[in-house]
Amino acid sequence: MIGSGSIARAHSNAFHQVARFFDVPFEVSTKVVCARDQGKLEAFADRWGWLEKALEWQSVIERNDIDVVDIAVPNAMHAPIAVAAARAGKIIFCEKPLAVSLDEAAQMTTAVASVPNLVWFNYRRVPAIALAKRWIEEGRLGEIFHFRGYYFNQSGVDPAKGKTWRYRKSEAGSGAIGDLLSHLLDCARYLIGYVAEVSAMTHTFTPNREVDDAVLVMARFANGSLGSFEASRFGVGRRNGLGFEIYAAKGNLAFDLEDMDRLEFFDANDPPPLQASRNLLVTGPDHPYSSNFWKPGHLIGYEHTFIATLGDFLSALAEGKEFHPNFQDGLEVQKLIASVEASAGSGLWTKT
Amino acid sequence: MIGSGSIARAHSNAFHQVARFFDVPFEVSTKVVCARDQGKLEAFADRWGWLEKALEWQSVIERNDIDVVDIAVPNAMHAPIAVAAARAGKIIFCEKPLAVSLDEAAQMTTAVASVPNLVWFNYRRVPAIALAKRWIEEGRLGEIFHFRGYYFNQSGVDPAKGKTWRYRKSEAGSGAIGDLLSHLLDCARYLIGYVAEVSAMTHTFTPNREVDDAVLVMARFANGSLGSFEASRFGVGRRNGLGFEIYAAKGNLAFDLEDMDRLEFFDANDPPPLQASRNLLVTGPDHPYSSNFWKPGHLIGYEHTFIATLGDFLSALAEGKEFHPNFQDGLEVQKLIASVEASAGSGLWTKT
Amino acid sequence: MIGSGSIARAHSNAFHQVARFFDVPFEVSTKVVCARDQGKLEAFADRWGWLEKALEWQSVIERNDIDVVDIAVPNAMHAPIAVAAARAGKIIFCEKPLAVSLDEAAQMTTAVASVPNLVWFNYRRVPAIALAKRWIEEGRLGEIFHFRGYYFNQSGVDPAKGKTWRYRKSEAGSGAIGDLLSHLLDCARYLIGYVAEVSAMTHTFTPNREVDDAVLVMARFANGSLGSFEASRFGVGRRNGLGFEIYAAKGNLAFDLEDMDRLEFFDANDPPPLQASRNLLVTGPDHPYSSNFWKPGHLIGYEHTFIATLGDFLSALAEGKEFHPNFQDGLEVQKLIASVEASAGSGLWTKT
Amino acid sequence: MIGSGSIARAHSNAFHQVARFFDVPFEVSTKVVCARDQGKLEAFADRWGWLEKALEWQSVIERNDIDVVDIAVPNAMHAPIAVAAARAGKIIFCEKPLAVSLDEAAQMTTAVASVPNLVWFNYRRVPAIALAKRWIEEGRLGEIFHFRGYYFNQSGVDPAKGKTWRYRKSEAGSGAIGDLLSHLLDCARYLIGYVAEVSAMTHTFTPNREVDDAVLVMARFANGSLGSFEASRFGVGRRNGLGFEIYAAKGNLAFDLEDMDRLEFFDANDPPPLQASRNLLVTGPDHPYSSNFWKPGHLIGYEHTFIATLGDFLSALAEGKEFHPNFQDGLEVQKLIASVEASAGSGLWTKT
Repeated sequence: MIGSGSIARAHSNAFHQVARFFDVPFEVSTKVVCARDQGKLEAFADRWGWLEKALEWQSVIERNDIDVVDIAVPNAMHAPIAVAAARAGKIIFCEKPLAVSLDEAAQMTTAVASVPNLVWFNYRRVPAIALAKRWIEEGRLGEIFHFRGYYFNQSGVDPAKGKTWRYRKSEAGSGAIGDLLSHLLDCARYLIGYVAEVSAMTHTFTPNREVDDAVLVMARFANGSLGSFEASRFGVGRRNGLGFEIYAAKGNLAFDLEDMDRLEFFDANDPPPLQASRNLLVTGPDHPYSSNFWKPGHLIGYEHTFIATLGDFLSALAEGKEFHPNFQDGLEVQKLIASVEASAGSGLWTKT
Repeated sequence: MIGSGSIARAHSNAFHQVARFFDVPFEVSTKVVCARDQGKLEAFADRWGWLEKALEWQSVIERNDIDVVDIAVPNAMHAPIAVAAARAGKIIFCEKPLAVSLDEAAQMTTAVASVPNLVWFNYRRVPAIALAKRWIEEGRLGEIFHFRGYYFNQSGVDPAKGKTWRYRKSEAGSGAIGDLLSHLLDCARYLIGYVAEVSAMTHTFTPNREVDDAVLVMARFANGSLGSFEASRFGVGRRNGLGFEIYAAKGNLAFDLEDMDRLEFFDANDPPPLQASRNLLVTGPDHPYSSNFWKPGHLIGYEHTFIATLGDFLSALAEGKEFHPNFQDGLEVQKLIASVEASAGSGLWTKT
Repeated sequence: MIGSGSIARAHSNAFHQVARFFDVPFEVSTKVVCARDQGKLEAFADRWGWLEKALEWQSVIERNDIDVVDIAVPNAMHAPIAVAAARAGKIIFCEKPLAVSLDEAAQMTTAVASVPNLVWFNYRRVPAIALAKRWIEEGRLGEIFHFRGYYFNQSGVDPAKGKTWRYRKSEAGSGAIGDLLSHLLDCARYLIGYVAEVSAMTHTFTPNREVDDAVLVMARFANGSLGSFEASRFGVGRRNGLGFEIYAAKGNLAFDLEDMDRLEFFDANDPPPLQASRNLLVTGPDHPYSSNFWKPGHLIGYEHTFIATLGDFLSALAEGKEFHPNFQDGLEVQKLIASVEASAGSGLWTKT
Repeated sequence: MIGSGSIARAHSNAFHQVARFFDVPFEVSTKVVCARDQGKLEAFADRWGWLEKALEWQSVIERNDIDVVDIAVPNAMHAPIAVAAARAGKIIFCEKPLAVSLDEAAQMTTAVASVPNLVWFNYRRVPAIALAKRWIEEGRLGEIFHFRGYYFNQSGVDPAKGKTWRYRKSEAGSGAIGDLLSHLLDCARYLIGYVAEVSAMTHTFTPNREVDDAVLVMARFANGSLGSFEASRFGVGRRNGLGFEIYAAKGNLAFDLEDMDRLEFFDANDPPPLQASRNLLVTGPDHPYSSNFWKPGHLIGYEHTFIATLGDFLSALAEGKEFHPNFQDGLEVQKLIASVEASAGSGLWTKT
């Protein structure tokens, strides 16, 4: 693993925990962790049980005793590491968003074509979101009229934040777009399908900030659904406020990540006097991943989305099946990001 | 109508509004209002469209041009007015609780035996509660295991409140018991049935206060259900916090008066992965009173429970049917109150 | 009053009830109601206490014993009645949206310039919305970053609905835009201020339907706030789902009309461990209109927004003050509607 | 560790995870797991990373290379193991409830007096409950009037369940009392303090079942607070429905384990128009354990309560401080259970 920040904690945890909750046909070993700051690296490796430490990722990426390279560093570093790791024939995991530009994302995707790969759009494995997907695929919702996605946090309000890499265009690529909207776009693709065209606006509330603080998007999906996406780092009061509402012919769904073990479901097939939103606690029985973790009624949290992502990846790997979300999914999101940025610049509807 | 306090406002409103929302086979005229304080009386009569005013209830109760006497005064005055009005052959409406003692309630009930009568346990006509009743009667819930009722407000916390009639034993009869618990007991009888025995405790937090501030009750219903009731004027943060939960073989229900247009319903007949509480907005279609008031999705409030009570009474009157809740219901609640008080005094289980 | 449909019920009720809850320095008399269908008219007039009935609005609009003309008919009829009533010097009340076109709205507004006038954007008087307005004006929210408004119902899903006037362009002017979005636009103007430019899309899910089923809007307010508005008659599961979220420097607000007695408020001035959304029951004390209606904790509903609108209008009239929302406000909303329609047609950002 | 059931999973997980989230001044090694069923034992040990397996707990309990014995077996086995482990000088962890009788609990507590010990009342370490405790201790709530605890699940409804050990008196000691009420009683002691007297009722809905299905308790705390506790395995629709409400002089609190990352807080010190329940997401900043786990806004779940319990125990051990909840706390709960059972039998108030 390359990286020792907060997302690297979540990845490390997943590596240790995956075999507790999933049938894993591999032995997962947390071999080497790389980071540039020696002090932090030592502390991180000790805390998270990494057997070795390295200051330079280049030094380890071609080692024969390493099968997987996990990229958990700022966005601008994703491409060089992924390309090098692919060249070395490694399995590659990469944090989202895939890259800082569409070109880069395309090059990376080409580079990894021959190795198994994964992008950490971990929210696909929130049980409530996986359940929404299952129900949509089963036809329980019918034709989908509206997908309304949002992702609000308040990370941008503090002007001092401008000094971290997430606020520098060269390192992050974008602001709320890459950080927040990318998750929404992946959810939308996963749940609804192909986004055909977008009209977007972006705004930076903070003077002299290089990246967008907020982005709004109107969209048409290829299947005729209408979409709206709104992401902002100026959502005062929200900590990790990703969510969506879906209105469809046979009902509606609502989800919010700050109540991630819940899914609201309105079933239009119920008799009229019983029609109402059900507030489902999706910890089982018969909910996605409910047999992996604890008993029904016993909650799971943020970290379990990484564990489930990894569990599914390893199963797919063992079975020789394609895993999603992979670099191709990451690239599709990057294409949407490029369309969003183009539309926000031109003020015009943009085909994706 | 005798009375010009806040409850008299709600009654007056119902008299004016009932024919807008219900098919009323009578002409309702707000003839005379009686109250002791001339200034207040004038203002009240003007505001609420009463044609005449009187300072003494005795002066009007036998008038031939009056058909109904509505009692909206402190509890201790209920009995003399009701008995006199019954003697005069009037239809009688009376605020809850019926009386300050079981003896008085029994005498009143005997006195009104030959005239149509009503006790304003208005919450039976909250659509959500009426819907709970309907479903229980239809067998939708199955055997009921638990009824958990509560009624919290914060009216007792302010020591200055001790000076109003509601805190004097002679005028109110009791504190939280008559004021709050009586509503719960009526609901419990209405929804579940006969309460067979109770064990209760009362407490007065405020030094030198004559009446109870809080009351807790455990109960066995005749049908085998278990009951718990808790009422308190020390429920800091609650304004009008009456509610209940019902756990039954086929599901559960939850209601809270501060969200009175809602009923939570868990249907155990749903397939397991769909089992969850539905948050029903009971404004229609096909909910109690939903065809009387506004269109589905358009809320009603506190006053509509009085209007619906009156509407149903007048229909029953026209059709010669027995109306509930009547003085007999008020008496049954008074019996339960007496049992609660006896048990709280003795520390023993008390048959009702 | 011209009209006898469901909105005419709500108006009638307000005429009868306003003096119960507001100090009204006028005598309000429900003099004449006009409608074309004699049977319905009779029933309506009886039910709602109108003293006289008329089949032709022209026959009564100039009567000397009439001071106010209230227009509660389909949109296309608003203009001729309003213009005639203005010419006759009457006070004019008009249902929203003001007109079926901007031209018409402009003519009407000019016509009524010399008479007191009102447009029934009743939701401004939902106590929660009035409270939001108060707090924004007091500066409690600080700079506003995002206004996200939505209005969903499911009225358009049933294809049979296409036969009512609301689905004919000539009578309604538009679909979700005039019916639903107009309320949102009025709220946005009321709460946030001038909308400077919009980018919009509309969609009609139902084949051969003349009017829009759904509309999405991105907006920039003159004060720098970002806006998004979404209105749809394909919001399966929502009955009257108008709501908004406001994110601002000092906190956030959330409101939903299906819980209209509530306002969610996040106060960023709270100490960090106490920061959370407060779920305010806005029935007092010290909330808008809480001294007019019932005691704190006792809910009000849909009809009270009309009563409060009328109460405020009559006070303003007595005091010679300008009332809002009036025809000028209705015209401003109509301008925004025209911009939304223009943008949806061109795919371009449109200055308002 | 003795045991390989579902609770043993949660304990195992805590042993592995504690050093990731807490500064642990010991090396935690999952040395030996004991269980009687060889097949299950193998699978469990593999899955949960136990280095050795044993079929008989007696064979390992005195081994010199073992410092801690963790008891995760049915209630009736707690005493012999705990006593033997104490004799061998081991640190002892024990599942709740401590024992199947008060006598046994007293003997166990005496036996472990000289060794560090812990009872897994894990819910004390739910961040929301720990926060409630902090605030009560700081005086933020003021005098506490009411503690209302409940614990509902639906485990008893299925008659087939009667065949597991939890429904046999000899192995479980009691039904809902030991399984559910014990958690509530520990919470009540932790949050409010000493329970002075109780009046209780129990009920078994299922014919021929040896243990109680439901238990209701009214209580007086030594500090004057009133308590009510209700626990039932017939709470259809609830999976793990532990919760409480606390009404106090300066506000109220509400908690429900099925939304365990939330705490509702009503602050009576807020200005009246701002008074409302805050729906706190207790993932930080400045909430209990929020610096241990993930970033604010990122949820934790069931397993983290065990991890935090263990983390706190190990810190206390290193610092030579007394840890709670220990066997003494388990014994105090057992005393309350005995009083509850005595009162349910006699129908009388029982001093504890």
